[in-house]
Amino acid sequence: MKLVIFIIDGLGDRPNERGLTPLKEAKTPTMDKIAEEGICGLMNAIDIGVRPGSDTSHLAILGYNPYEVYTGRGPLEAFGLGMDLKEGDVAFRCNFATVDKDFKVLDRRAGRISEEEAKELEKEIDGLEIDGVKIFFKSKGYRGALVLKGDVSDKVTDGDPHKEGEKPIVKALSKEGEKTAEVLNKLLKIVYERLDKHPINIEREKRGLPKANIILPRGGGRVPKVEKFYNKYGLKGCCISSTALIEGIGKMLGLDTYEVDEKKMNIEERAKIIIDKIKKYDFTLVNVKLADEASHDGKYEEKKKIIEETDKLLSLIFKEIKKDEVYFVLTADHSSPIEVRDHSADPVPIVIWGKSVRKDDVKEFNEFSCAKGSLHWIRGEHIMRILLDLINKNEKFGA
Amino acid sequence: MKLVIFIIDGLGDRPNERGLTPLKEAKTPTMDKIAEEGICGLMNAIDIGVRPGSDTSHLAILGYNPYEVYTGRGPLEAFGLGMDLKEGDVAFRCNFATVDKDFKVLDRRAGRISEEEAKELEKEIDGLEIDGVKIFFKSKGYRGALVLKGDVSDKVTDGDPHKEGEKPIVKALSKEGEKTAEVLNKLLKIVYERLDKHPINIEREKRGLPKANIILPRGGGRVPKVEKFYNKYGLKGCCISSTALIEGIGKMLGLDTYEVDEKKMNIEERAKIIIDKIKKYDFTLVNVKLADEASHDGKYEEKKKIIEETDKLLSLIFKEIKKDEVYFVLTADHSSPIEVRDHSADPVPIVIWGKSVRKDDVKEFNEFSCAKGSLHWIRGEHIMRILLDLINKNEKFGA
Repeated sequence: MKLVIFIIDGLGDRPNERGLTPLKEAKTPTMDKIAEEGICGLMNAIDIGVRPGSDTSHLAILGYNPYEVYTGRGPLEAFGLGMDLKEGDVAFRCNFATVDKDFKVLDRRAGRISEEEAKELEKEIDGLEIDGVKIFFKSKGYRGALVLKGDVSDKVTDGDPHKEGEKPIVKALSKEGEKTAEVLNKLLKIVYERLDKHPINIEREKRGLPKANIILPRGGGRVPKVEKFYNKYGLKGCCISSTALIEGIGKMLGLDTYEVDEKKMNIEERAKIIIDKIKKYDFTLVNVKLADEASHDGKYEEKKKIIEETDKLLSLIFKEIKKDEVYFVLTADHSSPIEVRDHSADPVPIVIWGKSVRKDDVKEFNEFSCAKGSLHWIRGEHIMRILLDLINKNEKFGA
Repeated sequence: MKLVIFIIDGLGDRPNERGLTPLKEAKTPTMDKIAEEGICGLMNAIDIGVRPGSDTSHLAILGYNPYEVYTGRGPLEAFGLGMDLKEGDVAFRCNFATVDKDFKVLDRRAGRISEEEAKELEKEIDGLEIDGVKIFFKSKGYRGALVLKGDVSDKVTDGDPHKEGEKPIVKALSKEGEKTAEVLNKLLKIVYERLDKHPINIEREKRGLPKANIILPRGGGRVPKVEKFYNKYGLKGCCISSTALIEGIGKMLGLDTYEVDEKKMNIEERAKIIIDKIKKYDFTLVNVKLADEASHDGKYEEKKKIIEETDKLLSLIFKEIKKDEVYFVLTADHSSPIEVRDHSADPVPIVIWGKSVRKDDVKEFNEFSCAKGSLHWIRGEHIMRILLDLINKNEKFGA
């Protein structure tokens, strides 16, 4: 038996003045059929009233305690870029940015330099060593990740001042962070010296473009101890997503990761990849992101349309899935109400579909109908346990 | 007011290809009437997705945290045999077995020696002392329990090699277990020396039967600190079951235990004993085991038939029970789906019946109907608290 968790990012919503949500109003015949044939409920990835990020909620849904393994965006970004990370390393997200002669930030994104330019500049930073701390840097366009290895701590502020006109300076948050702050400040000086005069930047200056002469580290975190997914569950798993964040989580847990560009690929192409991976792996996590993006933009109709497209994607996938071969979970990582334009703690609908689930009376997949399902209300951490139990891979406690 | 918890072992199931379970399909007019008159819900003895043993689930249902008080089968077996146990003692389950001259196991059960033979051999082991460790042994047919008292630890392996042709040797799992392993290995040598030449075994040899010349300890556990049921709840309680495991739990908690042989006694005889104890005690736990046995054997029709017989047993009991005298809980310790042939983490139906419960709309007692009950979903640990509250013996927290 295979396992699939299909997450529609930010799917849940709050009712509008007509008492409707994008999901309730959208035509979703496939989702409704899954709900009708499965067991339904509501789910909070972390807990009631806890408003999760997509990162913390995905970790919880995969059975990892985010209070233990989530240490900030830095490590996830570095994992996502495929960097070599060991427990105790400290990692940051970074932007290439522009500072003036007085070291004041002029442009926090250096006019979004190209992939190729970034790759050249990366070489000036990656592999440095300062006071015994080894420094690794990998770019992805104007963004990147910075990893410190050695006697380092994450008890430091961002180097990113988060506004223009101020200087990038790292401060220690406690005595423990003092050495790391010093190393980072030295690093920022060295980066400026090396990049400001770099041919790429000379060239950019000629073309009237801002120089990418600094990096701004932020979201620093200590790389946590994390048991790989395969070791934890004995399942060969993969993760299909269109965002670096989810890919980073997948890589951190040792899942094979696949990118599906939701904006460039059509439904058929996306379905083909997902079906292929479901057939190949014991466990497949799918994250589709666009509903959350529409929510952040406050676009009700757009969110509804994306949900209807996702239903079509699901209809193609379900043509290839048999009930005695797959347990399929359809849910969301969190709600992203249109009125909030951000994540909220409202629970999300969930359905577990497959041969031996105790089907209930719920016939529609939405925030209201699923509240009447026989799963009642669960937390993200319960999902993997329920699935393992359904495939009889759950360890017995007692005799 | 009296309290009764009636547990149908392994009752819950998963739907078959017709969407039915043995409980859903069985004719259970009494259970359905109890459900109709009571408040229903679903219950996981330990937690969602946790697959319990009968031991850990009964402990949880009786309000004891199995993660604290469950230390393995050894102590439960020793309690079940009525041995004197103190916190810190270490207890094992044992089989009488046969080893050859090279100390290799020939027969892990010594051809299942008789109760009388075992009682004679028991005397050669019970009361020994090795390196200051006092040793107690009590047999029950070819099985028994071994208790070590003194400076002992449970950080040792089984002495039982779990297969024939290998030697019974106890190894330390950590430095703490070294002395105990040494004592046990010395004990096994002494047991062999004493039993191999024992008249019982000389006699067995003459009759061509395997000698019961060794014991194989397994499932070792440290006797935990456990508050007796009466001290915890102020209720005079008893436990009625047909298995040594449940009896062991009852004795560990200081409940009076009664055996009801489900295979030899008829429904009327069983009902009589149960009714008698309900009248005599403040609290009665009843465990009926046969549905779980049928589940382990994968026998759907047999499980259904046992459930229908249990319904008859309940009908006799309910003739003698008045709603203003008894709060009655009907539930299971765990599901044992036919398709799994073992315990699963699927929740079980539960109904609480009695004068002042908030009756809901549920009219049938099964895995599907009870999911719609007003109890929603609870854990085993909640049951005693709810019952104590119903009889107004629940301590108030606050003013």
